[in-house]
Amino acid sequence: MPMPVLPAPLADLMAALGKLPGIGPRTAERLALHLVQADPSFVRQLATTLTNARDRVQGCATCGALTELQPCALCQDDRRDATLVCVVERAVDVWLLDKAGTYRGRFHVLGGKLSPLNGIEPEDLRIAQLEQRLEREPLREVILALPTDVEGDATSHYLARRLAPRGLKITRLAHGLPAGSGLEFADDLTLSRALEGRQPIA
Amino acid sequence: MPMPVLPAPLADLMAALGKLPGIGPRTAERLALHLVQADPSFVRQLATTLTNARDRVQGCATCGALTELQPCALCQDDRRDATLVCVVERAVDVWLLDKAGTYRGRFHVLGGKLSPLNGIEPEDLRIAQLEQRLEREPLREVILALPTDVEGDATSHYLARRLAPRGLKITRLAHGLPAGSGLEFADDLTLSRALEGRQPIA
Repeated sequence: MPMPVLPAPLADLMAALGKLPGIGPRTAERLALHLVQADPSFVRQLATTLTNARDRVQGCATCGALTELQPCALCQDDRRDATLVCVVERAVDVWLLDKAGTYRGRFHVLGGKLSPLNGIEPEDLRIAQLEQRLEREPLREVILALPTDVEGDATSHYLARRLAPRGLKITRLAHGLPAGSGLEFADDLTLSRALEGRQPIA
Repeated sequence: MPMPVLPAPLADLMAALGKLPGIGPRTAERLALHLVQADPSFVRQLATTLTNARDRVQGCATCGALTELQPCALCQDDRRDATLVCVVERAVDVWLLDKAGTYRGRFHVLGGKLSPLNGIEPEDLRIAQLEQRLEREPLREVILALPTDVEGDATSHYLARRLAPRGLKITRLAHGLPAGSGLEFADDLTLSRALEGRQPIA
């Protein structure tokens, strides 16, 4: 039986890297070959940075954004507009919107979209937590910034209906986001325009 | 002073990933955001695989290929043609050529190319080790498989002159490799054809 030319730990690394989103087999190969020949202290540092990031970064108990602190820097920042809350699907969307630079209110991460076919019901999302915040925070407008795909739109409409009796202003991001796509593929200008052109949904 | 929205461990991870070859800032962002929200056991496993690969994979003392064993599987494999040695620049080139499937001889990794401007002289490459192998192994042909750029060509010609007195057959890979490029950008067929069409250089 021929002995494998590729050392097993190297093959394992290629396989592991190939599981990351957007990393094809060819890129995984190139990265793995680079890493096994890189400065050992760089590789050790990268591994530590990786586990550190995963261990120390958590969801904010209030808004759900990625944070090391509880509550997070965004929830603690008194200069942000406490009357606005922007509802997003995922924790990463908070950072993408904040980076766009236009929005200076609060955030709320739902943690997903309604998807009855996949068993994702309203109680699986952070909707009750949003309602608690509407009770105790001076919020006057809810901005829905969910993806523009079918499930995102359904979730927006569900939330608009559910929150309507509270007499808040409920808006959603303007069209301008490409259909069937998430926030991470839009550039800062597109995100800013979508935010500025937000329209009432209910 | 505004508190940073991005947790420091996450920003560190983005910076570390951005140092990898072929990973731009946008890809580093996407990967880091994915990783801090991925299954913690997957992330821990990835970090272990990373350090494992770097710690356990070494250069073969004989040929310089990447290996866990000493000597490596290629040097131990008696069914490979012991009269042929293929000289490559980097350890990864061994794997790229072997994967192409045509070549069944030995390998020798130089560890670089001559580059007087960058202070890389013949004694910085594994040329003396190659000469030792030519003394003690039954090698009859040296195949030069260095990159087709200026430094690679200069290194090939230097080796051809230096080894000429030994009366060995010295060949180099056929043209077919794109100029100014390394082995990793060629597909298997191109590599195989380049190997089959190799021409005497001295």
